[in-house]
Amino acid sequence: MTGMPATLDRQSLHASVRDPLLETMNFLNEITARYPDAISFAPGRPYEGFFDVEDVFTHLRIYLDQLAATGAGPEDLRRALFQYGPTAGQIGHLIAEHLAAEEDIRVPAEAIVVTVGCQEAMLLVLRTLFARPEDVLVVSAPCYVGITGAARLLDIRVAALPESDAPVGDALPRLVATERAAGRNPRACYVVPDVSNPTGTTMSLPARHRLLAAAERLDLLILEDSPYRLFTGQARLPTLKALDTGRRVVHLGSFAKSAFPGARTGFVVADQEVVDRDGTRSLLAAELAKVKSMVTVNTPSLSQAVIGGMLIRHDYRLSEANAAAAAHYVANIAATRAALGRQFPPQVRDRLGVSWNDPGGGFFLTLRVPFPADDALLATSASEYGVIWTPMAYFQPGGDDHAIRLACSYLDPKQIDEGVARLARLVRERAR
Amino acid sequence: MTGMPATLDRQSLHASVRDPLLETMNFLNEITARYPDAISFAPGRPYEGFFDVEDVFTHLRIYLDQLAATGAGPEDLRRALFQYGPTAGQIGHLIAEHLAAEEDIRVPAEAIVVTVGCQEAMLLVLRTLFARPEDVLVVSAPCYVGITGAARLLDIRVAALPESDAPVGDALPRLVATERAAGRNPRACYVVPDVSNPTGTTMSLPARHRLLAAAERLDLLILEDSPYRLFTGQARLPTLKALDTGRRVVHLGSFAKSAFPGARTGFVVADQEVVDRDGTRSLLAAELAKVKSMVTVNTPSLSQAVIGGMLIRHDYRLSEANAAAAAHYVANIAATRAALGRQFPPQVRDRLGVSWNDPGGGFFLTLRVPFPADDALLATSASEYGVIWTPMAYFQPGGDDHAIRLACSYLDPKQIDEGVARLARLVRERAR
Repeated sequence: MTGMPATLDRQSLHASVRDPLLETMNFLNEITARYPDAISFAPGRPYEGFFDVEDVFTHLRIYLDQLAATGAGPEDLRRALFQYGPTAGQIGHLIAEHLAAEEDIRVPAEAIVVTVGCQEAMLLVLRTLFARPEDVLVVSAPCYVGITGAARLLDIRVAALPESDAPVGDALPRLVATERAAGRNPRACYVVPDVSNPTGTTMSLPARHRLLAAAERLDLLILEDSPYRLFTGQARLPTLKALDTGRRVVHLGSFAKSAFPGARTGFVVADQEVVDRDGTRSLLAAELAKVKSMVTVNTPSLSQAVIGGMLIRHDYRLSEANAAAAAHYVANIAATRAALGRQFPPQVRDRLGVSWNDPGGGFFLTLRVPFPADDALLATSASEYGVIWTPMAYFQPGGDDHAIRLACSYLDPKQIDEGVARLARLVRERAR
Repeated sequence: MTGMPATLDRQSLHASVRDPLLETMNFLNEITARYPDAISFAPGRPYEGFFDVEDVFTHLRIYLDQLAATGAGPEDLRRALFQYGPTAGQIGHLIAEHLAAEEDIRVPAEAIVVTVGCQEAMLLVLRTLFARPEDVLVVSAPCYVGITGAARLLDIRVAALPESDAPVGDALPRLVATERAAGRNPRACYVVPDVSNPTGTTMSLPARHRLLAAAERLDLLILEDSPYRLFTGQARLPTLKALDTGRRVVHLGSFAKSAFPGARTGFVVADQEVVDRDGTRSLLAAELAKVKSMVTVNTPSLSQAVIGGMLIRHDYRLSEANAAAAAHYVANIAATRAALGRQFPPQVRDRLGVSWNDPGGGFFLTLRVPFPADDALLATSASEYGVIWTPMAYFQPGGDDHAIRLACSYLDPKQIDEGVARLARLVRERAR
């Protein structure tokens, strides 16, 4: 064979490879690579200062030791670590303990599926719940890109609801009514109730109750995702799942921030009952596991073992283990706000039309500016001012383009001060 | 809120949860659980005797030490293990070395995406390549369930080609012509060329060349999956990818059998060029990575580190490290054939209409019987004869129901002898 190299027409590939968001993220990555000396408020990554390589070995050993202590022989240990395991995972019972101890969420281990990060949890939930072309996912916008990306991969229609306290009382029922009148079927609503990505907003307790009541009235499921909960910087409000007496909430869990991203370990709590035509009942989690068998088969046992060992070591609570990290994130948000306050004293702020929110903690803060914060400005910001950030419009195509997402998690206070100073210079000069 | 528990109608969920194959696999699992003393030829699992828990610690350490030896500081090690990494993976360059050393497949690391097992590789390839309702995946049947399951998850149409040497000369062009005449678009053909799951068939060298030529003539891609290659028991034939001068082959890789399943580490080699409307070129691997960012974000760094350490330790070749395992699998296939030969001497074999193939190695063997080998017979086999197997029809709904898949990988010789004796009693009594 000589063979003409096969070339593929990009237009013939699935639309998910042409996701405009991926293109813009790509642009952001290129900018970051081209200006290595710029201070970047872009990556929503955990701070690395508290990671210790030896912990991986320690946690793995703790997990194996506990298996052995509960009666597992050498063959069982070998099997647990090396072999294919149950599709729903090996540490569901440890996660159930964790949720009870830390979050007052009481579910049986059978209601939990351990996933390859929260991203796989999203994909499984969307694939399982969304079957017909008229099924619609409601998201609060601006919105985390993982859920809209997974929806695009599965050709699922998305309807956006402006993020605020109002929707649950008012805008959500209105949106659902509009969708239903158009022959569509809103099936679930995705929310990040605590110090959200991208805005840093936290949903109040009354708003949580209203959302749950609305979900029941409208016969919707709530998809709750809360990866930054340990870092709110104040008394945590209960999760929607902890308040959920009607099994309306599918809780999407992540250890990416409370343990570490490289483990790619997340989970989904899905205790909803599924009823078949013949009356057979199953848990939604069991249906999700079936879909998982066609996505990744199992979550790697190594990752489960390391996360399991960490849970055991800390008596199933991760808030204490994360106390230093939480203090760091809270301090970084405060430092960013303080730096913004110094750069934009109250009168200047008002005159320029600059403002920012008070997330109290988490990774992200929203800065509002009096001009479009788009790709062109980002390029200028990186090249001429040495500071990188993410246009908020990335998270809501066609939405508000006068806002910026500042990720503060990864930087140290000095970088924050200098980065905000550079950003302030850009804002002042551009606002003229 | 009091809350009526939300119940979901199973018929409203996506069809992938009602996959008939999952139901039958579930039946098989139930049978296995109900008859724990039955000898099971069902699970296609690696033998566990060669696994050593301490290897995980060793391989992880080797990987980290090599990073350090090539200039990585403590912060880099921490980042490599704990942080989000490149979507395409961290060990693509090690896998490229491995493919060159072991398989004479020469591709740049950029053409490789590290995946959460081969299953994710399949999902990424299908999602990326199949965009339109008329796109069709051709599979040789009986067929590994991972690929048809992934196709169902994405609502991709599948056309089955009977597995034999003939299709590549004859049946494949005919099937493609039929599909095209019906307005459909066969885009890729999935094959397992070496000691396949489920039948144990190996494609001859001339058949490999004919398949590649046909793929070029018909403008198809070949999806090559070969997880049992190290265990063929004879001189390995070259992979389709090694013979592929026209970049027609997307090679799906797995370390589940050559390292261990629990790592869930696989990869895809996709060196095809993708051309956009404006002439921009990319590698198919880069497009797959975009889809991966919406499925699992990254392959766990822990798994990559352990597999990477194993590759480094064995100088990028896994065949020597697997020599004992290969000998075990080859011996088990031979032991199963010998036991069948003792139970069914030539005349008996011919009189009853019983036959089996000679895979030479691998995990699976096909046994043909003179009656339907269905769920009812399987239940009887488990309860009254104490032996479990998989109906071949599971792998080709509506296909040949007079065949059985015997998985021989997991058992020891004594179990094989006893299991075949039990099975032979069933066959003899049923054939009367």
